[in-house]
Amino acid sequence: MREDAWIGRIRRWTAAPGGGAGLVRGIGDDCAILRPPAGKDLLVTTDLMLEGVHFRRDLLSAEQAGAKTAARGLSDIAAMGGDARFLFVSLAMPEWADERWLRAFYRGLTRMAARGGARIAGGDLTRSEKLAADVVVVGEVPRGRALRRDGARPGDVIYVSGPLGRAAAAGFSDVPEPRLELGRKLRGRATACIDLSDGLALDLHRMCVASGTAAELDGVLPVAPGATLEQALYGGEDYELLCTLPAEAKPPRGLERIGVMTAGRAAGSIRFAGLRLKPRGWDPFREG
Amino acid sequence: MREDAWIGRIRRWTAAPGGGAGLVRGIGDDCAILRPPAGKDLLVTTDLMLEGVHFRRDLLSAEQAGAKTAARGLSDIAAMGGDARFLFVSLAMPEWADERWLRAFYRGLTRMAARGGARIAGGDLTRSEKLAADVVVVGEVPRGRALRRDGARPGDVIYVSGPLGRAAAAGFSDVPEPRLELGRKLRGRATACIDLSDGLALDLHRMCVASGTAAELDGVLPVAPGATLEQALYGGEDYELLCTLPAEAKPPRGLERIGVMTAGRAAGSIRFAGLRLKPRGWDPFREG
Repeated sequence: MREDAWIGRIRRWTAAPGGGAGLVRGIGDDCAILRPPAGKDLLVTTDLMLEGVHFRRDLLSAEQAGAKTAARGLSDIAAMGGDARFLFVSLAMPEWADERWLRAFYRGLTRMAARGGARIAGGDLTRSEKLAADVVVVGEVPRGRALRRDGARPGDVIYVSGPLGRAAAAGFSDVPEPRLELGRKLRGRATACIDLSDGLALDLHRMCVASGTAAELDGVLPVAPGATLEQALYGGEDYELLCTLPAEAKPPRGLERIGVMTAGRAAGSIRFAGLRLKPRGWDPFREG
Repeated sequence: MREDAWIGRIRRWTAAPGGGAGLVRGIGDDCAILRPPAGKDLLVTTDLMLEGVHFRRDLLSAEQAGAKTAARGLSDIAAMGGDARFLFVSLAMPEWADERWLRAFYRGLTRMAARGGARIAGGDLTRSEKLAADVVVVGEVPRGRALRRDGARPGDVIYVSGPLGRAAAAGFSDVPEPRLELGRKLRGRATACIDLSDGLALDLHRMCVASGTAAELDGVLPVAPGATLEQALYGGEDYELLCTLPAEAKPPRGLERIGVMTAGRAAGSIRFAGLRLKPRGWDPFREG
């Protein structure tokens, strides 16, 4: 089958019923044409997912792989407090990915996107030895209201949206649920927000470095059933939101307190149970 | 070196002097934040470039590979008559790509982007066995003025922006020049436009199918020096613009007439020198 025939199929597989507000032209031209609404900022995130690095065929079904690919990008939109609108999917197809596998992959992608309020608007397609998918999500947020990771202040309370280490305890075989609704509720309330893609220790460190703060974690953390403390701190791929609110603010439902931001001596340092946590976690570049 | 250290370096390598109009936040958060201007449509294109499929290390220097990666996306913006604004680069880095290679790669990317009026606004980074780069270009165009491939009508004259087969004759070792200025001049004048990424026969076929037309090529085509007719028709990667204008319209400078759109019997059929051209060209899915 040739490229144009595949594109025709993918167009059918990813077709969304109704709407398409803001989408002037989707799959089928040199570019997609979007018409951004007035008074909004646009959010753009890209996530490159590679077979063998980010997912294993023996652990995830085709539909799960598609859903997870979409969920990772949607989670970035959630972390900025945004509404997800459009997904662009660049796919390198290996020989083993037959039409049945790809159809299920795009079904997973399209359904996860639709649950997040978004639709597939374009992409690219090529051949390769291993599967590679780059997903771009375009979202929007009222102008100037995006949640960033650099706004935390000493004294702010640190929260997470769910138990930690869930993905690691499940052997990274689960599909995360992007916290889009919670992210929207945090607009105008959270001082900083990030999603937990690489583990609490590393992502909290990143938030602290960006904000110029340090952090003191509580003695007891919300650890997922079956997860070790090691997995909760360093496991990654939980895709829960990590955010900070002023001490006097009442957090929205679904958040659990895990510590407090401090002035610290070194921005980015995290103390837990009297010890300093190393800023390590899921890192494709880690050695050993 | 860890992921965050690489991101810090890439941020420096891709920093653009001045401006940043419309970019609220670039590299360094979960998403980039763009502030789209009023009265514009946004254009989004993605191009996935793989080592071994789209480029060979022995044919292109690191800087050329970066420039070519950017140029492919910019060419899609040119084909829609747009102004390029932002690039997002997802990169899978193999072991052989050391800091020196990567620095030159990003230099090529950043310079080509700047020549096209765009800057690097984000991306993703991971490890893999072979180099893979997905480039997303975001552009803009006055509302409703984007050039599409589906507007050609029988009687329209077909033009190209330069000689054909140049890339194939050069063994695909050259870096194309995106025709952004010409694309902008074609706004409000061309009835359809597409860039020649996969060769005249295939891309003209695509334009004809989208527009519901057939095409009759002139007997003499502008063939690049050293290129065969085969390369001119099917070579691909020339990244010249292929467009149609009404018969009575005066084409802007830089366009050369190559034929005329007809009502034809079958949409997409192309006649050249009394024969019907097969809609084939550069296709990663072609067999044999």
